[in-house]
Amino acid sequence: MTSAVPAEPRSAHVHTPIPGPRSQALRARHGQHQDARTVHVYQDSRASAGNYLVDVDGNALLDVYGHIAAVPLGYNHPALIGAWREGRFDWAMGHRPALGVAPPAEWVDVVQALAAVAPAGLPHLLTVTTGAEAVENAIKAAFLRKMALRRGGRPWTADDLSQVMQNRQPGVNGLKIISFEGGFHGRTLGALSLTRSKAIHKLDFPAFDWPVVPFPASRFPLDVYAAENAAAEARALQQVEDLLVAWGPQVAGLIVEPIQGEGGDRHASPAFFRALRALLSQHQAAFLVDEVQTGVGTTGRFWAHEHWDLPEPPDAVTFSKKMLIGGCFLRPTLVPVEPYRLFNTWLGDPLRGAQAQVVLEVVAREGLVAQAGRVGDALVGGLQALQERYPALLSQARGLGTFAAIDVVDGPARDRLVDACKQRGLECGGSGDRSIRFRPALIFAERHVQETLDLLDRAAGSLS
Amino acid sequence: MTSAVPAEPRSAHVHTPIPGPRSQALRARHGQHQDARTVHVYQDSRASAGNYLVDVDGNALLDVYGHIAAVPLGYNHPALIGAWREGRFDWAMGHRPALGVAPPAEWVDVVQALAAVAPAGLPHLLTVTTGAEAVENAIKAAFLRKMALRRGGRPWTADDLSQVMQNRQPGVNGLKIISFEGGFHGRTLGALSLTRSKAIHKLDFPAFDWPVVPFPASRFPLDVYAAENAAAEARALQQVEDLLVAWGPQVAGLIVEPIQGEGGDRHASPAFFRALRALLSQHQAAFLVDEVQTGVGTTGRFWAHEHWDLPEPPDAVTFSKKMLIGGCFLRPTLVPVEPYRLFNTWLGDPLRGAQAQVVLEVVAREGLVAQAGRVGDALVGGLQALQERYPALLSQARGLGTFAAIDVVDGPARDRLVDACKQRGLECGGSGDRSIRFRPALIFAERHVQETLDLLDRAAGSLS
Repeated sequence: MTSAVPAEPRSAHVHTPIPGPRSQALRARHGQHQDARTVHVYQDSRASAGNYLVDVDGNALLDVYGHIAAVPLGYNHPALIGAWREGRFDWAMGHRPALGVAPPAEWVDVVQALAAVAPAGLPHLLTVTTGAEAVENAIKAAFLRKMALRRGGRPWTADDLSQVMQNRQPGVNGLKIISFEGGFHGRTLGALSLTRSKAIHKLDFPAFDWPVVPFPASRFPLDVYAAENAAAEARALQQVEDLLVAWGPQVAGLIVEPIQGEGGDRHASPAFFRALRALLSQHQAAFLVDEVQTGVGTTGRFWAHEHWDLPEPPDAVTFSKKMLIGGCFLRPTLVPVEPYRLFNTWLGDPLRGAQAQVVLEVVAREGLVAQAGRVGDALVGGLQALQERYPALLSQARGLGTFAAIDVVDGPARDRLVDACKQRGLECGGSGDRSIRFRPALIFAERHVQETLDLLDRAAGSLS
Repeated sequence: MTSAVPAEPRSAHVHTPIPGPRSQALRARHGQHQDARTVHVYQDSRASAGNYLVDVDGNALLDVYGHIAAVPLGYNHPALIGAWREGRFDWAMGHRPALGVAPPAEWVDVVQALAAVAPAGLPHLLTVTTGAEAVENAIKAAFLRKMALRRGGRPWTADDLSQVMQNRQPGVNGLKIISFEGGFHGRTLGALSLTRSKAIHKLDFPAFDWPVVPFPASRFPLDVYAAENAAAEARALQQVEDLLVAWGPQVAGLIVEPIQGEGGDRHASPAFFRALRALLSQHQAAFLVDEVQTGVGTTGRFWAHEHWDLPEPPDAVTFSKKMLIGGCFLRPTLVPVEPYRLFNTWLGDPLRGAQAQVVLEVVAREGLVAQAGRVGDALVGGLQALQERYPALLSQARGLGTFAAIDVVDGPARDRLVDACKQRGLECGGSGDRSIRFRPALIFAERHVQETLDLLDRAAGSLS
């Protein structure tokens, strides 16, 4: 219990196939009760350190997947371990509160710490537990605002209240949120209606009749494809505008990721997002930016949308993953007038919030946002060099900070390359139908970039 | 940090108005960033003990509300504190894992402990973070199973996959889940389409066109209203059957709470639920039992549906609240064939799961399920005596275990009575439009019943 924090391994080392025999034995036991087919390896949480995930077979994997982009400070960061051992979370150990009913006094400090990283112009915080819940609440805020606008100050009627109990609200059920091809926003049915990354995520589940528009995924390198990319963005903007005109006041908002994190690391230009923002303002539809995967510093800015230099802020920004607790920040115009409109039992988890407070302290103290920008440049530069070395296999190296990716020639080759990386000690994962994504922790440094590139090089060499 | 666990106060004591000046000051600070209007009081988590919530003003409130039914062992139970201090959760302190990707080895033990309380016939466990997510996943399992039945072994088609990306799946979008008037199943848009407790929860949010049926809320005492209650249940069953016939293979399932926990503590008979189960089997629609509020022993059985003596088990049972982690148990027929169909980043929180493991140990060791049954009888008996004392104010005392309620003559009187209770040291809350609900922890004992009744008596007397 009082053992020291484990030191970060000097490099990855693998001495069994991945997954190893102990992971396989655990999977067999686990699988008796729960679906364990998706598990890569079982982790030795106490032995893992820094950027290295140590599994139960004693393999140390350099982790650039980060539990689907959800590890802010690597494993067993001394600040997180120290805070736990010094009793900083002790107020959270004796029960789990309903934060909207009787929050612990310490919760107010946590909220202040989270609010200190609010995106400019979005001072209001709603905490929940997951990214999907964050998205559900952001779109609910957009629906409330749209209906308030449409009512123009008139109160709702007894008829409204009676119809809604039958799931029949004239006008309301026709409200729409626009999302993009390739977007991922979660898997609850509201969020899933916005998700467009993979058919298998959506198949057999009822969806709201909400419209989809093509995402103008940039081709790289940007200087070579500048004209082509600009034309794709102009076409996408035109389609958004056409929908806004066609659906008029039925469109409550549009949701977009700054970089499509599941759908294949697809980027668009700051100018595209600025134009989107302007279009949505013009049509009184909310601009919802889903930063569940891009938020918390990984792109070299705390929020990825800060890269856009928006003249007017987004209406809502969602978060989860590296923040450990879920939630969204809202512009004052999106804050519900009545209490309890956006509400649930937990409203997040104060212990994860308190850990996020420690994470934010470390991020600020150690300059990790700037580090992600600097280290990310090295990573993307190295990926570009690799694709020149393996032109038949690799292409489209891209990234913003350490939020990076590279394309493989096709899906099966991508899957083989991911596995070849794992077998050599690089825990990585796919994105879209043929990309490899990089989502390291914020403590990922130059030496880890070098090791990542070396392992990827050897893995790619083994496939050629 | 190594201070002893606080002793449970011998009784409630209140020396300020509720909320007191310190709670009010915290609310003002909290409200700068987050909606704090719903907060009753701010809690002193370290000073709270057993059944008594101690607030930041030093008031000790006997808590029969339990953070909306979410406190299993009261405050600072020695077993939870001891487990934390002995390092039993230390494996969870260094990062938050994606449980479907690289779970800590200890997670497999947690899963085994949770699986040990699986309802009979439902061995498969899916963990998530909240009750709403549990419901979303239970209905997703029902949709998958219904579509598998409808395909009859044929694979899905390329056309299915293409349509779904447009949110247009012929057949699928017409699938329906039936829910009951007064039911509460959460607030994400899928779950919210099933929720029918309060119009304000639903107003202005798009809903799926899913049907609602009346709930045959029993009138109490049951022996007096036996014939009337049986007739109401027969009518409700007929309406369910009519819907099943009318919608045919479009009905994927029906969801019901064993006792409507938000909608006014409305009960129905075991015979009603047995008949529902049979009807749904007959029509190949899933029987989904939402035990988010009724589960984990509070009704005197671990799962409330155990009171029904079902000849065939439910198809899914959801949980959250007193389990600290959310999830659902599934019958083998509802387990998806493919991996990743029911999936998300977190898949619950292993630390809350590990605390649940401790909770389940204490529940078993201390016989708390039987205690809830025994103490609940005393509570309901006492409420019946009180309603005889205040016949113009109180009626319909009812309960199963300590999951109990009493009606007040009208909504405004109920709200005044709840406040009068709080001012005297009883933290309680409403249910439906004019009930007071009791949701104490499982350590609620005979002496707490007596104090609850005394405080309620004094509060009722002050209104008369």
